[in-house]
Amino acid sequence: MKLEVLAEETFSTVERGALDSEITGAAGLDIAEAGDVTFLANPKYTPQIKNTRASAIFLNEKEIIEREDIFILRAKDPYLAYTRALRLFYPKPEIVKSIHQTAVVDRSANVAETVEIGANVVVGKNCAIGENVKIFPNATIYDNAKIGANTVIHSGVSVRENCEIGANCILHNNVVVGSDGFGYAKTEEKRWLKIPQVGRVVVEDDVEIGAGTCIDCASVGETRIKSGAKIDNLVQIGHSCTIEEDALICAQTGLAGSSVIGKRVILAGQVGIAGHLRVGDDAVITAKSATSHSVENGRILSGIPAFDNRNWLRSIAAFRRLGEMAGAIRDLQKKFAKIEKDEKSEKDDLV
Amino acid sequence: MKLEVLAEETFSTVERGALDSEITGAAGLDIAEAGDVTFLANPKYTPQIKNTRASAIFLNEKEIIEREDIFILRAKDPYLAYTRALRLFYPKPEIVKSIHQTAVVDRSANVAETVEIGANVVVGKNCAIGENVKIFPNATIYDNAKIGANTVIHSGVSVRENCEIGANCILHNNVVVGSDGFGYAKTEEKRWLKIPQVGRVVVEDDVEIGAGTCIDCASVGETRIKSGAKIDNLVQIGHSCTIEEDALICAQTGLAGSSVIGKRVILAGQVGIAGHLRVGDDAVITAKSATSHSVENGRILSGIPAFDNRNWLRSIAAFRRLGEMAGAIRDLQKKFAKIEKDEKSEKDDLV
Amino acid sequence: MKLEVLAEETFSTVERGALDSEITGAAGLDIAEAGDVTFLANPKYTPQIKNTRASAIFLNEKEIIEREDIFILRAKDPYLAYTRALRLFYPKPEIVKSIHQTAVVDRSANVAETVEIGANVVVGKNCAIGENVKIFPNATIYDNAKIGANTVIHSGVSVRENCEIGANCILHNNVVVGSDGFGYAKTEEKRWLKIPQVGRVVVEDDVEIGAGTCIDCASVGETRIKSGAKIDNLVQIGHSCTIEEDALICAQTGLAGSSVIGKRVILAGQVGIAGHLRVGDDAVITAKSATSHSVENGRILSGIPAFDNRNWLRSIAAFRRLGEMAGAIRDLQKKFAKIEKDEKSEKDDLV
Repeated sequence: MKLEVLAEETFSTVERGALDSEITGAAGLDIAEAGDVTFLANPKYTPQIKNTRASAIFLNEKEIIEREDIFILRAKDPYLAYTRALRLFYPKPEIVKSIHQTAVVDRSANVAETVEIGANVVVGKNCAIGENVKIFPNATIYDNAKIGANTVIHSGVSVRENCEIGANCILHNNVVVGSDGFGYAKTEEKRWLKIPQVGRVVVEDDVEIGAGTCIDCASVGETRIKSGAKIDNLVQIGHSCTIEEDALICAQTGLAGSSVIGKRVILAGQVGIAGHLRVGDDAVITAKSATSHSVENGRILSGIPAFDNRNWLRSIAAFRRLGEMAGAIRDLQKKFAKIEKDEKSEKDDLV
Repeated sequence: MKLEVLAEETFSTVERGALDSEITGAAGLDIAEAGDVTFLANPKYTPQIKNTRASAIFLNEKEIIEREDIFILRAKDPYLAYTRALRLFYPKPEIVKSIHQTAVVDRSANVAETVEIGANVVVGKNCAIGENVKIFPNATIYDNAKIGANTVIHSGVSVRENCEIGANCILHNNVVVGSDGFGYAKTEEKRWLKIPQVGRVVVEDDVEIGAGTCIDCASVGETRIKSGAKIDNLVQIGHSCTIEEDALICAQTGLAGSSVIGKRVILAGQVGIAGHLRVGDDAVITAKSATSHSVENGRILSGIPAFDNRNWLRSIAAFRRLGEMAGAIRDLQKKFAKIEKDEKSEKDDLV
Repeated sequence: MKLEVLAEETFSTVERGALDSEITGAAGLDIAEAGDVTFLANPKYTPQIKNTRASAIFLNEKEIIEREDIFILRAKDPYLAYTRALRLFYPKPEIVKSIHQTAVVDRSANVAETVEIGANVVVGKNCAIGENVKIFPNATIYDNAKIGANTVIHSGVSVRENCEIGANCILHNNVVVGSDGFGYAKTEEKRWLKIPQVGRVVVEDDVEIGAGTCIDCASVGETRIKSGAKIDNLVQIGHSCTIEEDALICAQTGLAGSSVIGKRVILAGQVGIAGHLRVGDDAVITAKSATSHSVENGRILSGIPAFDNRNWLRSIAAFRRLGEMAGAIRDLQKKFAKIEKDEKSEKDDLV
């Protein structure tokens, strides 16, 4: 791809370099090769510029570098421009229109003509599989499920009965959509009586779900993952939750039932969200934290249980010296006891 | 279903409503429709009564509501009565007696006549599959495994060699029963030598296991999940653990090896249990907590490491102000230093 | 196996017992039967010696026991000797050379003659499957993947495109190798734009990976699990991480992207490792802890965020009394206020 075209497609401008130079790939500073375009987004990595083998680099509008043998592309957001470059060099592979002879597709299923369905895939009764859907081998689509156009479903995925997956989604390996919610009532004999889980899960468009993630259906009603949400690996989404548009949920985070995660919320890794609460739009919960209360829009919270991130930073700094603090308090108490004793003896002297 | 029958089947009594009114479903206050029965178990949701479209409601014996256009069913435990109603409206689907032609069932397996085995299921040598078992597509039952009557096994499940699943169990998608325990001895060269894991897992009757949960076999001997235990999604049960009757283990909780979880214990979400300990009957470990010591019967513990929940609540309240506390101590220390200095100078003056 | 041979093979010496006695198995103190060899490695279990039914026991060089009816084998490390005994009694099962007729192996795949490939396994284009590889039913090997000699792959595993698994590895059920890394750039409209994940995962020799564990591929470049590393169940390894030789990663631990875990590092259960950092060789991070900073070689860290384990032990001991500490500080402050007031009034008196 010519440098000029690359600039155009990534909304950047060529500051240095022949417009018709060939750029053949994109990679990070440390592993880029001759012909690649790379990027600098974090000043922490500036030293790597000295040694990179890349031929071109995306820089923000102010960055100045010493190397004169690298083409420079100026972009408002170098990371975004680099992402666009990667997407140009590595477009999504084309569908190979086919249904493997070992796939078991129920006759009642409504399957578009343009799908690619791999070996040993099972598609249940009355399913609807949209245009350009790709299903990798050994995935299972239960009865009455719907898969929207252009969606990719990897091996080992289960989409359970009545669930609906939107268009342009990616479900990585072993994702489970629509397993039973975890709900029991306690009987008079203190045993657990299963609450039927007959609701469903709706995953809207442009959602990506990481490997091994499990999304439970509602008991009655639905669990909903809204458009543009991104969910990492091994995440647990409880029954009747709603994940709003463009929320980002990192690996191993878990949500109990009936909670709502607002738009563009970021839940970092291994976060826990209790049931029946709302995390407001644009809030961030940092890694390993947990909240059992609702969170206002735009807040950044940390800790178990989570509170304001800046206060938390102060608390954890003090926590490292908590043993000393306890000692200091004991020390002060002793000194006080001495003062009180002295005072008392002074008074006694006066008496 | 007639209101009278519903009351009878849910051990409740009709306080208001024609006995032959038709109730057609059950749902929560917020999503119930006309014809549905709903319930109120938590006063937090009382305001929703004003707007519910439900036709009937389970209430406890004291609750008074303003709405006069809703039938009232009195129950000792409205949540339990509602659960029973849901179970009436949504009974477990009947088995469609069949073995799919693409299923691979070893000739030596002992398979009951009434099973439903889906496409691409694999059943190994000498397995025993009981009456009315349903196995969804793409599940794998290794050699010498046993599956008890009425058990449901979902797609992607693996039941490993020699393991035993009881009657009336549900194994959700991608459950793994009997993977190797995580055990190594360190060699003289500081490398890890695998300890053979040749034991098995026994899951007793009426156990439900959530999607993606992994239960390791014992090295020698067995890991055992006792009757009535309920396990949520993405839980890790280490080798040689015993989960006693009716224990409840929430999502993403992990148990190291050889621990015992007592009867009716509740381990909330993302809890960690170290190895070789016992959590006593009826104990509760709250979400995100971890214990490396045994826990007495009936205790409620929180924190990492976990201690008495009430003390923990006090500690975490103070933790939020720990930065201030550290400042207060420094402040007190300075004041004391000043007092001591003043005292010293007073004494010096006296001298 | 004769006692003499057992001693020889486990590098131990017979202290008591006829050299030609038959030992028929190995098991822990509590479950061993007549004929078994057992071991004592931890003095905590010494009381169990009184009741064990084992016929022989591995003891370290100093241990003295009262029982005179048990053969004694002296070993430098009884646990290691016991492990070696178990490995003698339970050798890895032999491969049954075969490719099941329902397996779908692409014609372009290069499959060794000695493999055992189970029912419904799918092997993609241009794959290479080495000597004595065993693949259990319903596993999926994507295009261009390589599986090294003697490796065992369990049901439900997915090895994604271009990934490479070394020799003598074990991948337990539902392991995912090579799922997409979790990477997005934020667009001008605050939506997430997927960063292509076109790198791969390389798993070197002698690696064991637990059930349900997910290892993401790099965006560009590779994620690498080096020789001898052992990974437990439900672990998350982010894109571009490197796990060095003989590292041990316990269940439900999660690593964000681009971090390096040093040689022989131990990450205990449910640990969290942030991105772009290095955990030095031989370091230990204790259970439930998390670090967002690099860790020096050999350190033992605990807490969220993690710091020196000994300091942490002091801090958590104090944390249990944090409510009291807060009260003690308030108390001291009041007493001080009183002193200050008294001093002030004394001074006022003087004026």
